[in-house]
Amino acid sequence: MSHLKNDLFLRALLRESTPHTPVWLMRQAGRYLPEYCQTRKRAGSFLALCKNPAFACEVTLQPLTRFGFDAAIIFSDILTVPDAMGLGLYFSEGEGPKFERPLTREWEIRKLAVPDPNVELRYVVDAVAEVRRALDGRVPLIGFSGSPWTLACYMIEGGSSANYHTVKTLAYARPDLMHHILDVTARTVTAYLNAQIEAGAQAVMVFDSWGGALSEAAYREFSLAYLRRIAAGLIREREERRVPSIVFTKGGGLWLEAIAASGFDAVGLDWTMDIGRARALVGERVALQGNLDPAVLLAPPEIIATEARRVLDAFGPHPGHVFNLGHGISQHTPPENVEALVETVHNHRPQEQ
Amino acid sequence: MSHLKNDLFLRALLRESTPHTPVWLMRQAGRYLPEYCQTRKRAGSFLALCKNPAFACEVTLQPLTRFGFDAAIIFSDILTVPDAMGLGLYFSEGEGPKFERPLTREWEIRKLAVPDPNVELRYVVDAVAEVRRALDGRVPLIGFSGSPWTLACYMIEGGSSANYHTVKTLAYARPDLMHHILDVTARTVTAYLNAQIEAGAQAVMVFDSWGGALSEAAYREFSLAYLRRIAAGLIREREERRVPSIVFTKGGGLWLEAIAASGFDAVGLDWTMDIGRARALVGERVALQGNLDPAVLLAPPEIIATEARRVLDAFGPHPGHVFNLGHGISQHTPPENVEALVETVHNHRPQEQ
Repeated sequence: MSHLKNDLFLRALLRESTPHTPVWLMRQAGRYLPEYCQTRKRAGSFLALCKNPAFACEVTLQPLTRFGFDAAIIFSDILTVPDAMGLGLYFSEGEGPKFERPLTREWEIRKLAVPDPNVELRYVVDAVAEVRRALDGRVPLIGFSGSPWTLACYMIEGGSSANYHTVKTLAYARPDLMHHILDVTARTVTAYLNAQIEAGAQAVMVFDSWGGALSEAAYREFSLAYLRRIAAGLIREREERRVPSIVFTKGGGLWLEAIAASGFDAVGLDWTMDIGRARALVGERVALQGNLDPAVLLAPPEIIATEARRVLDAFGPHPGHVFNLGHGISQHTPPENVEALVETVHNHRPQEQ
Repeated sequence: MSHLKNDLFLRALLRESTPHTPVWLMRQAGRYLPEYCQTRKRAGSFLALCKNPAFACEVTLQPLTRFGFDAAIIFSDILTVPDAMGLGLYFSEGEGPKFERPLTREWEIRKLAVPDPNVELRYVVDAVAEVRRALDGRVPLIGFSGSPWTLACYMIEGGSSANYHTVKTLAYARPDLMHHILDVTARTVTAYLNAQIEAGAQAVMVFDSWGGALSEAAYREFSLAYLRRIAAGLIREREERRVPSIVFTKGGGLWLEAIAASGFDAVGLDWTMDIGRARALVGERVALQGNLDPAVLLAPPEIIATEARRVLDAFGPHPGHVFNLGHGISQHTPPENVEALVETVHNHRPQEQ
């Protein structure tokens, strides 16, 4: 494996000091890039893009060609995991992801099993290896998965949901079944992330996109408990280097201290929490990743620069910050605005306060 | 005006002790009640229901006939305010509220003016007076309005929105225009709430449903600043009694202390924050209203009782708690589950800790 030319991202995740703050964006390979739209068209569909390692590799690298991002993230979708568990993922026009076989009956839940990621998710593992080769040590590669709670939301609701009433009703009325789903899914996620690490992922991130829909007690019971288990089961070193892990609960700001104690090296923040306050709360325990409102990228470049500096200054002159958005980049973002953002972050020198 | 037979709700909002915790539910007059659906059918549409004081009075009283709620809330919609400002509210089947004339151009924004609530919103003011007479002192009547930020979201997006990108782009790129909209709307909301108080509302509540979509800095600038202005402009006493005010920013838990200092008597909480922790944070400054996850009401009655007691016990044996959901009741809630909830709250006696 080649030597890593830019390891700022990995160093920041381990709270080592870096000459400038590294930056990447959630969903950085996506529809706001014309070249992405072209590859997607050639692939035929979003799912075909995910399932073909050559296409996945191509779109993973596209944002790195354009912008000076400090990390790549494997192009994939969190719902490949329930798909590998047999639920039959498909995308219906204008309605987002759906499952042919959502979990609606007890026997369906009882027969859930952990798939072998090197078989059922081979296309992701292969894409990781291919991207890693193509990157040739330019920047680190991030592997990822959805969290058990977030995946369970989709598996039980059968797709996106406005209020998660079906999955919450199951959680409140039949916690035994809910815990069974979460247990199988947590073991799957752990094996899947480890397979990505073994294939070359140099950091991993868990997206708990819907954890913030829960009450604090329910979050601890149905999401955080399984995040802890995943953190405890991850491969921690590979190629004589620590493989840092990031956890991101969207809407989880209220529970930041508990999340920071869950065993991950870094915590992703959405844009609702002041990152300076977050840093003060977590202290030396974890690095932080975030947290510009993605809507800012729709404003003119000078506003983007001001708002990005506001985040950087709020974090202050400490090690352990990876700049990112607080959520995925909007498809309506003009690519030149991303350029303005990356330039601002890279040129910013923290003021000693 | 008749003597108030049950004033527990008003006393709890002023942090006076009460023999049991008072309870009402956001959207308690709504589609989960068959009698509501019947009246709505007779009225012809949701908007016709809102705009006819006799129908509005009828549905306001329906949940009080069924359940032992400790407060009534005038049946209306937050979007009557932009409608009165000339935007032309309508409801399209399955798509929710829309405006015929959303704010899209600078001249439209510049010509916004404060309507006279006693003219343009006469139907609400009349409904308040009619409900107050019909209640005959049984429980207090709550008047309400949307917050300036939340109303501006609808006025600029033209309806509901997944990510508020249009309104946020305006806020970031043209803060001058955004502040003009918020200024006119805040003056309108203040006049509207005061008109409701003069017509007989014994408490008022401001719903900041989308404040939680903002970053902390943007929340302070575009939502909280205007909430403070409203609080400062409200009529504070009427019929020789304090008229308590409640502010509810959904998703605002991270900013609770700032919200508690904004001048309202009570703060509504969504279900994501532990109410015991919230009480510890606000101390003696305000009462708290909340905060059961509405999804709990879809579970069996014994689970509802357990989860309701969890909220009551988390708040603890202190004055200043009004029990409520953390958001509006789901239309799929079985009415008998509401009965189980009200009974649990009324029969609960706080444990000295």
